[in-house]
Amino acid sequence: MRVGLGQFDAVVGDLEGNAERMRAVYSRARQGGVDLLVFPELAVCGYPPEDLLLKRHFLDDNRRVVKKLATDCPEATIVVGFADYFRGNAYNCAGVLKNGRLVNVYRKGLLPNEGVFDEKRYFGQGTKPLIIELGGLNIAVTICMDIWDIDWLVKFLKSSGRIDVLLNISASPFHLGKIETRKEIVSQCATQLECPVCYCNLVGGQDELVFDGQSMFADASGKIVAMAKPFEDDLLIADVEAEGKNYTVKPVGDSTSRILDTLDEMYLALVLGTKDYVRKNGFSEVLVGLSGGIDSCVTAAVAAAALGAENVIGITMPSKFNSPETISDAEKFAKNLGIRFMTIPIGPVLERFNSSLEQAPGWDGKGIAYENLQARIRGTILMSLSNQSGALVLTTGNKSEIAVGYTTLYGDTAGGFAVIKDVFKTMVYKLARYINDVNGREIIPQSVIDRVPTAELRPNQKDTDSLPEYDLLDKILKGYVEEDKSAGQLIEGGLPKDVVSRVIRMVDRNEYKRRQSPPGVKITPKAFGRDRRLPITNRYNHGGNSK
Amino acid sequence: MRVGLGQFDAVVGDLEGNAERMRAVYSRARQGGVDLLVFPELAVCGYPPEDLLLKRHFLDDNRRVVKKLATDCPEATIVVGFADYFRGNAYNCAGVLKNGRLVNVYRKGLLPNEGVFDEKRYFGQGTKPLIIELGGLNIAVTICMDIWDIDWLVKFLKSSGRIDVLLNISASPFHLGKIETRKEIVSQCATQLECPVCYCNLVGGQDELVFDGQSMFADASGKIVAMAKPFEDDLLIADVEAEGKNYTVKPVGDSTSRILDTLDEMYLALVLGTKDYVRKNGFSEVLVGLSGGIDSCVTAAVAAAALGAENVIGITMPSKFNSPETISDAEKFAKNLGIRFMTIPIGPVLERFNSSLEQAPGWDGKGIAYENLQARIRGTILMSLSNQSGALVLTTGNKSEIAVGYTTLYGDTAGGFAVIKDVFKTMVYKLARYINDVNGREIIPQSVIDRVPTAELRPNQKDTDSLPEYDLLDKILKGYVEEDKSAGQLIEGGLPKDVVSRVIRMVDRNEYKRRQSPPGVKITPKAFGRDRRLPITNRYNHGGNSK
Repeated sequence: MRVGLGQFDAVVGDLEGNAERMRAVYSRARQGGVDLLVFPELAVCGYPPEDLLLKRHFLDDNRRVVKKLATDCPEATIVVGFADYFRGNAYNCAGVLKNGRLVNVYRKGLLPNEGVFDEKRYFGQGTKPLIIELGGLNIAVTICMDIWDIDWLVKFLKSSGRIDVLLNISASPFHLGKIETRKEIVSQCATQLECPVCYCNLVGGQDELVFDGQSMFADASGKIVAMAKPFEDDLLIADVEAEGKNYTVKPVGDSTSRILDTLDEMYLALVLGTKDYVRKNGFSEVLVGLSGGIDSCVTAAVAAAALGAENVIGITMPSKFNSPETISDAEKFAKNLGIRFMTIPIGPVLERFNSSLEQAPGWDGKGIAYENLQARIRGTILMSLSNQSGALVLTTGNKSEIAVGYTTLYGDTAGGFAVIKDVFKTMVYKLARYINDVNGREIIPQSVIDRVPTAELRPNQKDTDSLPEYDLLDKILKGYVEEDKSAGQLIEGGLPKDVVSRVIRMVDRNEYKRRQSPPGVKITPKAFGRDRRLPITNRYNHGGNSK
Repeated sequence: MRVGLGQFDAVVGDLEGNAERMRAVYSRARQGGVDLLVFPELAVCGYPPEDLLLKRHFLDDNRRVVKKLATDCPEATIVVGFADYFRGNAYNCAGVLKNGRLVNVYRKGLLPNEGVFDEKRYFGQGTKPLIIELGGLNIAVTICMDIWDIDWLVKFLKSSGRIDVLLNISASPFHLGKIETRKEIVSQCATQLECPVCYCNLVGGQDELVFDGQSMFADASGKIVAMAKPFEDDLLIADVEAEGKNYTVKPVGDSTSRILDTLDEMYLALVLGTKDYVRKNGFSEVLVGLSGGIDSCVTAAVAAAALGAENVIGITMPSKFNSPETISDAEKFAKNLGIRFMTIPIGPVLERFNSSLEQAPGWDGKGIAYENLQARIRGTILMSLSNQSGALVLTTGNKSEIAVGYTTLYGDTAGGFAVIKDVFKTMVYKLARYINDVNGREIIPQSVIDRVPTAELRPNQKDTDSLPEYDLLDKILKGYVEEDKSAGQLIEGGLPKDVVSRVIRMVDRNEYKRRQSPPGVKITPKAFGRDRRLPITNRYNHGGNSK
């Protein structure tokens, strides 16, 4: 039996378009002699469709499109994910298409409802396994989380007789470290069930999430014998055969995937996430405010990789507080990257604004209010040009500053997509060096990488005037934000008490800013956004020191 | 047995503070001779605590505070809601406190996970009923949704022996029409279980939600015999007695609650929601941009009712497009309401901004970009004054314009809390007249109510240049947004096809603006925000016409 894993970039809500993409994969698969063609979880409607699933007509449309797909693709057996309505509930389903018809439906048994997942909001729980027979092989059809609890799975399949192949269709979003975990899960399933595993994962960016593909075949010993490309469409084919309980899995064609390290993964995730957000929302060009700092350089470089340098416009908006070095670095960087570049100084508007505000009692043209004013003038310039030109504004904030609220709401947070919002500042530096490495030349000027971080909103300002050193800050943030540790636990772990308390207070107090910030690519195990849902109104003080 | 229902305004995360509030209620209850004192669902930590529940130390703190409360309040039996940790899971619990100790814990059996609720994200499901005996009565303890599925409840309690009283602690958020439904549920429980019901509900605003209290006693015939105050703290007391299966429920003291109509409810919900958001987040004053239009007048009037007129500052920011009438109406309104008022014209800044933007190719100082620029200058003025003074900016957008994106991101959407974001424009008019009625004089000038709606961002602009008449628009929005109807269903229902398609397209395309907008009080069955979760990237076109 020749199996094809057709991982592709499905667009949420684009039912007809996704079917069209699958028909194209089907044609290629048929040319390759594929008997069983597998598409990802919810491939028909994209993942996650969220509250679209509450619309009955959306579910009806899913079924209509699946049936049409069956009619159009009669010459192979297809397993494809779609959302279906059945006796008062929606279900996350795998449809089996054969001879032009939808012949069987499997309903997902384990529904994830933590982290970024809300499946119990939408779906009823399936209770029956589905075994399909093809080429003399008994194939168990499963969906994503079904295979993540091996004890549950073994029990679930116990009465299903002999299983020769475990098939899993997934929409398993990326974060750093996830790929290794996923390989272990697939491998464990193979060894426990003593059969090959065919695992097909989704590709593409969807709002905060990015799906990395990397579909795979494991043989019965648990060895991953073939893996599809990371972060792009691919059709991975293998011949799966059995003689009794002796199984062979032979990849067909090229199946050696590049080994990725952490920075490769992060970079590819950011590039695909940005590309898909921009393109799927109908934009072709983007605007980036270039301060001459490292965050905006990395953001623009990712955007250029995602969309082509010709589609990125860099704008520097200097004030009297910007050093000549940062201004010239911004220009140099734009030239290195090959993007359009323009300069709009904010001085005249800032002065005029300040005079107008002097009409209000108490305005003193100093302090945080005056610093934020500068950032908001820049945000307004970017948004004005965006409204005029139709280019999307990318924001440049990193996870460290977003965590502690070292940002100006409607200022530097103004824009449609926040490329590096889940990248800690210490990682931004690594990413900058990586970008220069992969390009084989200096894209981001060394002087940008070497400069002491500064917002340049007042004379001689440095980030460390307001924040701890980023090495320390990021350690605290990882523990508090990503691992839900208490202040006490962090301090016991050797972090300085006063800094821990101060940082936690900043994180808690700035939830309101994050709530109004644009989405960005999740790359860590816990990102801000749908992944971490904290109240704005919240008096729980400082992570556990409530005494 | 004398039962007290101690509804109060719990603050999320303020464990010690909530315990302090409960100790004060306990003192009053003891003076009133209460034997059984009941507090709402999750009264210890507030509702909903969201991802605080993922922190193990938060759960430990809950238990610590409950035990301390037991020690401090030994002279009555107390039933109180708290979050607890048990064998690897968090549970939504009712603790029974007696003789200074936490003697029993009930774990909620039915966990809501739709609409604004995410309880399956956090809580394990309780499987055992709890019956406590007090004064010879068998009291079944339940939590909120447990009583909303009567068939489930009857089955759940089947093996529990005789039940004399059904006790329910709730955090049941308000929306229009909810109170009637809740009374029916309570009444139905009484008749089905043939016993009195004691129902204690939370009070207070928490981010998007407002809890209206209105705790109640029903007798065994299902009659609601006493009801606590709406939208404020109250201690409702009744004597519940039994002779065999003959039960009596006699209210102690004043128990006649004012009958509210729809506008009363809406107004009180907006006032409490605004008051609690502002106060619980540590603000005392608010800023409102007064355009002279009806939305900003209603917003400021609600704020004055919530916080006192002395804590509201109105700012009008006229341009050359504002008519003399709207400018003078803004001033007149501020005078009527008795709030501080100031004028900062935006002309000079707008001109200077326009000149700066002319440095960018393509800038023409016209169209949407120029209109948005005006709104963003106003947003920046408000935020600058907010940053300087520490007053919170309230935004003034209504549900109709937020739905179709007739707003400027970082312009009129800039602010901390959106008072009328869940109020359709047609309802804003009713609310304006109501506000004048309840004040017994003209607060909102009649000319404001009579004026044709306009954003005044270009000469002779009217809302109907871009939008359908609000009567029609609101009908379509109710069907599409609140009832998840398809375009086809709306058209079959008699709404005009072209307008329906256009409105749905506008709603779908503007999800990105809503995602970056501030929270506001939910008053309808489906509000924007946590209640309605749609992807930004979404090609599902026009509510079902995907062909």
